[in-house]
Amino acid sequence: MMDLPRTDYDTPFNITRTSHVVLTVKDLDASRQFYTEVIGLVVTADEGDTLYLRGIEEACHHSLVLRRSGDTPTCARVGMRVLRDQDLDRLKAFFESRGCATAWAEVPHQGRTLQATDVAGVPLEFCATMPVVPRMITQFHLHKGGAAARIDDTQILVPDVRKATEFYMAAGFWLSEYISPLQSSELAGVFLQRKGNPHDIVFFSGRGPRLHHAAFTSPESVNIIKACDVAGTLGFGSGVERGPGRHGPGHAFFVYFRDPDGHRVELFNTHYQAMDIEVEPVRWDPGDAARMTPWGLPAQRKWFAEATPFAGVAQSDPPRAGDPMTLEKFLAKQSVV
Amino acid sequence: MMDLPRTDYDTPFNITRTSHVVLTVKDLDASRQFYTEVIGLVVTADEGDTLYLRGIEEACHHSLVLRRSGDTPTCARVGMRVLRDQDLDRLKAFFESRGCATAWAEVPHQGRTLQATDVAGVPLEFCATMPVVPRMITQFHLHKGGAAARIDDTQILVPDVRKATEFYMAAGFWLSEYISPLQSSELAGVFLQRKGNPHDIVFFSGRGPRLHHAAFTSPESVNIIKACDVAGTLGFGSGVERGPGRHGPGHAFFVYFRDPDGHRVELFNTHYQAMDIEVEPVRWDPGDAARMTPWGLPAQRKWFAEATPFAGVAQSDPPRAGDPMTLEKFLAKQSVV
Amino acid sequence: MMDLPRTDYDTPFNITRTSHVVLTVKDLDASRQFYTEVIGLVVTADEGDTLYLRGIEEACHHSLVLRRSGDTPTCARVGMRVLRDQDLDRLKAFFESRGCATAWAEVPHQGRTLQATDVAGVPLEFCATMPVVPRMITQFHLHKGGAAARIDDTQILVPDVRKATEFYMAAGFWLSEYISPLQSSELAGVFLQRKGNPHDIVFFSGRGPRLHHAAFTSPESVNIIKACDVAGTLGFGSGVERGPGRHGPGHAFFVYFRDPDGHRVELFNTHYQAMDIEVEPVRWDPGDAARMTPWGLPAQRKWFAEATPFAGVAQSDPPRAGDPMTLEKFLAKQSVV
Amino acid sequence: MMDLPRTDYDTPFNITRTSHVVLTVKDLDASRQFYTEVIGLVVTADEGDTLYLRGIEEACHHSLVLRRSGDTPTCARVGMRVLRDQDLDRLKAFFESRGCATAWAEVPHQGRTLQATDVAGVPLEFCATMPVVPRMITQFHLHKGGAAARIDDTQILVPDVRKATEFYMAAGFWLSEYISPLQSSELAGVFLQRKGNPHDIVFFSGRGPRLHHAAFTSPESVNIIKACDVAGTLGFGSGVERGPGRHGPGHAFFVYFRDPDGHRVELFNTHYQAMDIEVEPVRWDPGDAARMTPWGLPAQRKWFAEATPFAGVAQSDPPRAGDPMTLEKFLAKQSVV
Repeated sequence: MMDLPRTDYDTPFNITRTSHVVLTVKDLDASRQFYTEVIGLVVTADEGDTLYLRGIEEACHHSLVLRRSGDTPTCARVGMRVLRDQDLDRLKAFFESRGCATAWAEVPHQGRTLQATDVAGVPLEFCATMPVVPRMITQFHLHKGGAAARIDDTQILVPDVRKATEFYMAAGFWLSEYISPLQSSELAGVFLQRKGNPHDIVFFSGRGPRLHHAAFTSPESVNIIKACDVAGTLGFGSGVERGPGRHGPGHAFFVYFRDPDGHRVELFNTHYQAMDIEVEPVRWDPGDAARMTPWGLPAQRKWFAEATPFAGVAQSDPPRAGDPMTLEKFLAKQSVV
Repeated sequence: MMDLPRTDYDTPFNITRTSHVVLTVKDLDASRQFYTEVIGLVVTADEGDTLYLRGIEEACHHSLVLRRSGDTPTCARVGMRVLRDQDLDRLKAFFESRGCATAWAEVPHQGRTLQATDVAGVPLEFCATMPVVPRMITQFHLHKGGAAARIDDTQILVPDVRKATEFYMAAGFWLSEYISPLQSSELAGVFLQRKGNPHDIVFFSGRGPRLHHAAFTSPESVNIIKACDVAGTLGFGSGVERGPGRHGPGHAFFVYFRDPDGHRVELFNTHYQAMDIEVEPVRWDPGDAARMTPWGLPAQRKWFAEATPFAGVAQSDPPRAGDPMTLEKFLAKQSVV
Repeated sequence: MMDLPRTDYDTPFNITRTSHVVLTVKDLDASRQFYTEVIGLVVTADEGDTLYLRGIEEACHHSLVLRRSGDTPTCARVGMRVLRDQDLDRLKAFFESRGCATAWAEVPHQGRTLQATDVAGVPLEFCATMPVVPRMITQFHLHKGGAAARIDDTQILVPDVRKATEFYMAAGFWLSEYISPLQSSELAGVFLQRKGNPHDIVFFSGRGPRLHHAAFTSPESVNIIKACDVAGTLGFGSGVERGPGRHGPGHAFFVYFRDPDGHRVELFNTHYQAMDIEVEPVRWDPGDAARMTPWGLPAQRKWFAEATPFAGVAQSDPPRAGDPMTLEKFLAKQSVV
Repeated sequence: MMDLPRTDYDTPFNITRTSHVVLTVKDLDASRQFYTEVIGLVVTADEGDTLYLRGIEEACHHSLVLRRSGDTPTCARVGMRVLRDQDLDRLKAFFESRGCATAWAEVPHQGRTLQATDVAGVPLEFCATMPVVPRMITQFHLHKGGAAARIDDTQILVPDVRKATEFYMAAGFWLSEYISPLQSSELAGVFLQRKGNPHDIVFFSGRGPRLHHAAFTSPESVNIIKACDVAGTLGFGSGVERGPGRHGPGHAFFVYFRDPDGHRVELFNTHYQAMDIEVEPVRWDPGDAARMTPWGLPAQRKWFAEATPFAGVAQSDPPRAGDPMTLEKFLAKQSVV
């Protein structure tokens, strides 16, 4: 029996969902074309050096923030929502009790915002509100490419998956699925969620912390194919890094793109509702290639090796360097191209 | 400014979602064929006079229960989930404080179950758990018809929508959208939710309480069309009562079927995430036919007039019989076929 | 045994397919928006008072020509292709041998063009070539609305279906399907084709000749739904006259729109290949509503009654006015809304 | 200007389309499961050691014949249709005038059948008729996996593409697209067609003759994805050899499977109508990887190297062994995995 961390269902604060990602990019025009034409996000505000985008169903101001920078492209911050402003104060206490740095911040187009670093070094920010803007869900003539509907989750590489898992489950996250070799208690990957589907934040073992990707949902499979097709036509075709394919864990139909700065973004659909307490987390054996990748080509090696650094955050390798559970190593068991 | 009831965000119990519907039917074989081949539910258990079905992504034992009965087909009960068993005791107190009858019940294939009648007379039941069964989401070769993924919501006709709305918002439900004539404070329809999309329970003005329909999600638009096509091939084609079409309120792509006993079931997709506190409920003017039904034929009159009685529950008409806000009347403004 | 006309497989000319339709419209801007945004045609040339459009897979210059006119909107001409220029001379002889008027014409953006009137009074034109323009099939970012791929066929109301059928089958057309009441030899509707799918020109009994509609194919079902959705958003929603639904005859998934001038246009997919000589024409009984319209609402009465006149062409009613086989009458047997 | 062979539009016979493929397999049960559950063909007849299958829209008896054999799996024959029986006699004369062997054959479930070997050594057979069976196109509840609608084309490796091209164009085939390096007159690949879409028979340079694959159309993109998903669930997932992806030449959305005996089969949609004489063949430069494969991973090497032998037919390499135009070599310019 696997010894898994346990969710604290009685936290005094309510984190509701993953909210947004802040990335730096070198060429804002190229990024804008990629994210609007291929991914299908819509622009809420263009403020010169910063572009705010959201999915077609989102009424919030932004789920992706792109900031122009001449430096190495990074992820500045991962954003999450809490239900009410008062949750922020309680959340601040939670972080501090764990020895994690916090700070109040003034962030444009967000309500009161708490910035904090999690136990793995990931720079987060939390707010309860954003300005409300119109959902574009029925502006069908304006939908483009993948018609990205909303942000769903982020995937993050960390050297100690169990440590991150314990932290987030103490903060009220549910563990929906996890990857762990048979006859081992190692956690190679975990899918953690708050909003009632399988994932808000996903951790995989690897040098980190680094942002592996941000994931947006597409309404239908054909939107995902259209994103690829538009990528091909507009010159972004070489950025289709993995898929379209079907995930074992999480069951999603997916495709991964690299954006013009190399940031990775996933479009997917076919997740499932997960809000019943009796359902145990699903375990996946990384050595079972046929279940991990039910069909099609495995990911290219770079899909495992490359990721976006967090701005100014030191990285480290998994603590036991010879550990077979690092992302790259366990997946090497599959016939990686 | 519309005077709307307010959600109580601090209820001592946590209702998580709509869970199941219990219907009586005359011919269990005919119903089984309809719900498996056309709607695409899967059978969890066949116990002679009772059939338990669930959607392809559901790990819970049932979201639809069909009981054979020679009497007039009815809805026996609408089921909802709470997070933990301890929520049931607190919920019992809530109902009793409002003068609503409650009782503990032994219900097969459910955890401890609280049965209660809401302020509108709707027979409900609540439980925290069900036996866990395999999700069929990746058993692609077994998916049929509409490939119904999970139960989403029920729609119920009641004579006093505001009264029901106040009750459910006091129980923690959010109001996502509502139908109310301009320059009026009447509520003709409300969309109430707990699980973070637009609807768990929907009330419309009309003779009631009666169950207008239960709604299941389909993964993609083509599944909804396939449900119609299978209905046509298998002799259920005349049961396609409304659509396929696009709803104004809620934005869903939908179709409504009448099952062999006349119970109405909706398949839909294209809902949206709704879990941010700053988003105000969306108001719809029932007289604005072009927004209420953006394209295509309006519903047939019987879609408005006919519904399933609740077993043993007295019905009444909207209190002000001449009120133009009854479902049938306000929708008559649209060019109902 | 039904006494059907026979195809002449040895005609000295080769008509290959339906090619284009020429319509007059009052407001070219409104028509342009409708046909590009909703139907998804692309503009090849805008010459002030005339707009030339084509489908996204078409390499020919036009499949729809819209001419501005202040008069009653009409269909000026239905166009067909022959394989080679030399076919035109032989085709001219065919028409003249049947007492049908012909004339050579200079038509912009078409090769040598033969204009001719068929036995039912329909103004046709034939050419072997058009200027070649780029297929837009992989310009995915420019696809809109229904993404109409190519013209497929026209449907025409005529007072004598058998007479038209004999004429076209003598010209080499194949009869793929037909509508005829049981125990009758009346032809109420015929599907005639040259290009190897079920239809290039369809005749139905009714006052005529009048153009009932032109039909374009859409790549996928979702394109047809998107056409409806864009129509709804852009204010053309009331023009969704019939469907989306499934035809019995021909098996197409379809929707019918009325354009801003009332011309009717169909989008459909799911046709089939038909080029094997051993396959007998399929007979449909108009009284068998469940097979004619497998599911969903029947057509509105206006779908049967209204059609576009041909410019300057006299109309007449079916010769036997009391005949139950007129389009309107036999279809009245179905529960027309 | 490329010196291409020319189509003879005045052949005294009429080949209408690719009709069927005859393969030998080791385990008829495994093949049956693969072709019915994954590809979605339906069984017309099971005669013990021979299985006859067809697509869901096909009214002909078979488009795929599987024969049990303990030997190395081979392709026994590629079938084509002619319009009328009398075409067979004229076609016999054509083959003989080119020095190609012919023979009349009694073939079960086919009309009078002419067997002949083409100039490249491919064993062909031609017939005008087959027994008519019901189209399954509207038996929606029976559609499975990729819902293969009909056979479309075969692709064949030959050592001399130009020679094969000249032969087939003399037999009336149209050249729709071809692959040829810039500043060269080499033909590395040709798409030849009779039925009015881009391909009935495709030749690529390589050791041969060998059958590279048979291609079937799927109604919609989601059917192609479903074929992959069913393959994954039923244990055929490792047979997804290439794609899903988008072809440059031909524009198809496609996937390639290897069946249980290693025979390759393609499912695709998004072809286009091609029956206008003024449209010149489209030239593709094999060195232009971005246009040849607009997005996604390139094919695995085995996709280029492996193919099915024809029963009892000697193979040879391309005549100029150092020629950079062999399939494997020119495609090596692309970043083949």
